[in-house]
Amino acid sequence: MPKVSHASSLREFPLNRAFTWFESGPVLLIGTSWKGKPNAMTISCHMSMGFTPLLGCMLGPWNHTYEILRNTRKCVVSVPGADLMEIAVDIGNCSGESMDKFAHFGLTYRPGEETGAPMIEECLASLECKVIKIPPRGGPYMFILEGIRAWHNPDRREKRTFHARGDGFFIIDGETLNLRDRMTKWQDCI
Amino acid sequence: MPKVSHASSLREFPLNRAFTWFESGPVLLIGTSWKGKPNAMTISCHMSMGFTPLLGCMLGPWNHTYEILRNTRKCVVSVPGADLMEIAVDIGNCSGESMDKFAHFGLTYRPGEETGAPMIEECLASLECKVIKIPPRGGPYMFILEGIRAWHNPDRREKRTFHARGDGFFIIDGETLNLRDRMTKWQDCI
Repeated sequence: MPKVSHASSLREFPLNRAFTWFESGPVLLIGTSWKGKPNAMTISCHMSMGFTPLLGCMLGPWNHTYEILRNTRKCVVSVPGADLMEIAVDIGNCSGESMDKFAHFGLTYRPGEETGAPMIEECLASLECKVIKIPPRGGPYMFILEGIRAWHNPDRREKRTFHARGDGFFIIDGETLNLRDRMTKWQDCI
Repeated sequence: MPKVSHASSLREFPLNRAFTWFESGPVLLIGTSWKGKPNAMTISCHMSMGFTPLLGCMLGPWNHTYEILRNTRKCVVSVPGADLMEIAVDIGNCSGESMDKFAHFGLTYRPGEETGAPMIEECLASLECKVIKIPPRGGPYMFILEGIRAWHNPDRREKRTFHARGDGFFIIDGETLNLRDRMTKWQDCI
C-alpha cells in the first residue's frame, strides 16, 4: 500500500515565490489522483510561463498521466532533490497503468488540500495546480498549469535539484551565485 | 563596432542531438539580425518541445527581440558557458533598442549560414532556427523555434552551463551522472 502521511513535514510557502522552484529547469514529478489511486510521472520538458505561477509542461498520449490530467484538471508538481534522482528516473521509466508507483518506490504522500493529488513528502516542494489549458488532441502536447497553493519541506537535508540533459545524463546543481545587483531591469522578479 | 569572426571556431554538430543542449534548462541567448544590426537577448524561460529540435520560448512585447522575431522569423539560440554568466545577465538587463550589445560586451559572432543571425563564438553552441509559431498579440507569448542547423565550439574550456533560479540567483552545473542504463523506456532519446 502507498504510505499516506499522517505527520506531514510540508509547510505552506508563498505562492508568488514558487516560480523560483521551476525556472532553472529541474526534473519534476507530476502527481495525480484518479479513482482513489495516486500516481506520479517524471518530466523534464517544462518551463515557467508566468509568476502566478504558470508552468508549461510537455506530456502526451504516451503518458498514463495524459488522460488523467484531461479528466481531473488537477495535479501536484513536486520538486525532487538530488537524493531522489535514481527514484525519479525509475518513476519515469515505468507506467502507472500497470503498477502502484507510490507503493513500489516506498514514497509517502499527503493529499493536496486543494486538489487531492499526492504531494510527495520526500520532495523539496510541492505546488498544487489546476490545468488551465489542455492540448489539442493532435498536439503539440503542452499543458498549462496554474499553481494555486504551494508547500515546501524545510526538513530535507539535500537542497540541490537535478536536471536532465536528455541523453541519459543528469546534472546536479553546483555552486549558486547571487547576481541580484545586476538584475536592474527585473527588480519585480527578484 | 561588433566583431565579426573571420577565423571561426564553430564546427557543425548533428542537428538531431542539439536537444541535449536545452533540456536541462540553461540560460540561453537569442541572437537576431535586423537591418544589418546584430542583437542578442537572454532567456531562461524555455523548454524542449521535440527532438527535431523544437524549442518553446517565452518572450513578449517588452523584449526588443519580439518584433524582430515576428518580422524575420529567424534567429540563433546560443548556449553560454558559466564563464559568460555575468555578461549574459548584463545582456538581459539592457536593450538592443538603444545600444549595440555585441560592441558593448565585446562579443564576436559569425553570421548564421542559414539565418544570417549572429552565432556567438564565445558560446558553447549555437542553433540556427526558424520561427514556426508566433504568439497571438494578446499572449501567451510563446514562440516555437525549429532548429535547422547546429554548431558548437569544441575549443571552449568552460563546458558548464548555468541556470536562472528566477530570484537573481544563478546555479552553475555541478556533477553530471550517467544514468543511461536506467532509461529503459526512452532508448530512442539517448
